[in-house]
Amino acid sequence: MKIAIAGYGNLGRGVEAAVTNAPDMELVAIFTRRDPASVTVATDTPVLAWAEMASLTDQIDVMVLCGGSATDLPKQTPELAKLFTVVDSFDTHVNIPTHFANVDAAAREAGTLGVISCGWDPGLFSLARLYASAVMPDGADYTFWGRGVSQGHSDAIRRIPGVADARQYTVPVEAAVEAARSGENPELTTREKHTRECYVVAEEGADLAAIEQAIVTMPNYFSDYDTTVTFVSQEELDANHAGLPHGGSVIRSGRTGLNGEFGDTIEFSLALDSNPYFTGSVLASVARAAYRMHQDGQVGARTMFDIPPALLSQLSAEELRAHLM
Amino acid sequence: MKIAIAGYGNLGRGVEAAVTNAPDMELVAIFTRRDPASVTVATDTPVLAWAEMASLTDQIDVMVLCGGSATDLPKQTPELAKLFTVVDSFDTHVNIPTHFANVDAAAREAGTLGVISCGWDPGLFSLARLYASAVMPDGADYTFWGRGVSQGHSDAIRRIPGVADARQYTVPVEAAVEAARSGENPELTTREKHTRECYVVAEEGADLAAIEQAIVTMPNYFSDYDTTVTFVSQEELDANHAGLPHGGSVIRSGRTGLNGEFGDTIEFSLALDSNPYFTGSVLASVARAAYRMHQDGQVGARTMFDIPPALLSQLSAEELRAHLM
Repeated sequence: MKIAIAGYGNLGRGVEAAVTNAPDMELVAIFTRRDPASVTVATDTPVLAWAEMASLTDQIDVMVLCGGSATDLPKQTPELAKLFTVVDSFDTHVNIPTHFANVDAAAREAGTLGVISCGWDPGLFSLARLYASAVMPDGADYTFWGRGVSQGHSDAIRRIPGVADARQYTVPVEAAVEAARSGENPELTTREKHTRECYVVAEEGADLAAIEQAIVTMPNYFSDYDTTVTFVSQEELDANHAGLPHGGSVIRSGRTGLNGEFGDTIEFSLALDSNPYFTGSVLASVARAAYRMHQDGQVGARTMFDIPPALLSQLSAEELRAHLM
Repeated sequence: MKIAIAGYGNLGRGVEAAVTNAPDMELVAIFTRRDPASVTVATDTPVLAWAEMASLTDQIDVMVLCGGSATDLPKQTPELAKLFTVVDSFDTHVNIPTHFANVDAAAREAGTLGVISCGWDPGLFSLARLYASAVMPDGADYTFWGRGVSQGHSDAIRRIPGVADARQYTVPVEAAVEAARSGENPELTTREKHTRECYVVAEEGADLAAIEQAIVTMPNYFSDYDTTVTFVSQEELDANHAGLPHGGSVIRSGRTGLNGEFGDTIEFSLALDSNPYFTGSVLASVARAAYRMHQDGQVGARTMFDIPPALLSQLSAEELRAHLM
């Protein structure tokens, strides 16, 4: 199957790596809104201008969108669904129903398929929540993120006057994770579930106390959390905080039995060296499923909730039953 | 949807509880090969003789088979698939392809659907292996079982002369679990992965040393494991070892990135107070999906690998996208 990438940042690099390593896929093009001559990619894949994609619909089976959820994908995914079967990683949870409706309308009209919100959260974590609640309806879900880098929170710190660079880690509180596992279905506040660790490079002469105060009181981002701020040199930040690790866990604890006699805990967790490369790898597997579902005649919007899991795999149904069942 | 149960042991009780608690399901009958008058069930569901089921095909949407994998299901599932859409928990991994083929032939001929090998292993653990390998093809899988009661191993001990009763726990070796998580893709032997703990009630005057020797040297069951035998009184066994807890974990560690630069670990784990009640709860959710897939015109054999996850849930697709995605 012939795959193309629309947008080449960290996530685009992740999809490029995963598709290149998949024996059943060919990466035919990377589209950019920048000047293609200015973009250096990791493989020998052709880099083409965004405007060229419309003339290449017969050479691309699935377009994987790698733009951001704030402004890129709400516009791009419905637009590109008019031309291609598409896959995206739209992750603004509250806007998923609207985005789904927009992609659904565009894809149905064009006879394409659009799978939205693929990755690990939304994505694999969503699946963990769904399976766990379906097989154990009487229970409560807890999602913990980290320890990992939040790029949105890092960006928010960098916008504070006097800050040269920053990296923010979201850290689950171990006591809260244990409480979720315990089966006691605790009510956990935002502050009880996660802490935030900030590593900040200040500009020379900046007021460190003012920067720290601006961070810990920032609404939505930090004020509801116990936040620690550590000032470091740019060299230290580059040496110790250059990666984009992430992960977390989905825990459901609940009851089975006629009268809830039995307590059970279901847990799904990830520990990732690189958030964008792992997310890119998930997107590649969904591109495979999208291709197969569209070949099978399906059109419209889908999520990973709608994908028969076997379609994600390189292995045949027979191999899966023989070796993984 | 109208559900019936074929076979009423521990697993049948688990399905009975889960279906009774599902607001979208009605449990219409429990079929037994024993004298129905001799079977007391936990709810007010009618208990009927096995032979009666053939006359009730229009009153049952899905038949959930709760027999054993050794001799019951290989025969019963294809037979009952001639009459009903069926769900079973066939768990003899090596025979799954053959069982699938037999159920597929029967179901296709009858225009029914048969979902085999549902539960947690095979079942949720199979799904964990499939998702993890699909999204991270470069890696290795490890499955650990326990700490939990193996009914097959408990039965094997009870067949030894001089043994009055026994309960066997399968216990994962924590060092092996840690090694699997480490990302070093260790080769782990059977002995390195699990130990076996046996609690044995001896008959009066029995030769304890001989019993212990018979257990630890038993081929297939114990000889490849570090096995401990503890003799206890019947009272102690009843007081401390009456439950059927189980669980375990599926761990995949692997690499992402163009040249495998990044290491990731994916883990799915279960801790269950009651193996049969949890398995019964999984079977109930699969019965829901089987009903929907058959309503949608699908016939033949399936596994959980073929089920779009949304179909397992009581919630609508819209609710799932809004709340669990």
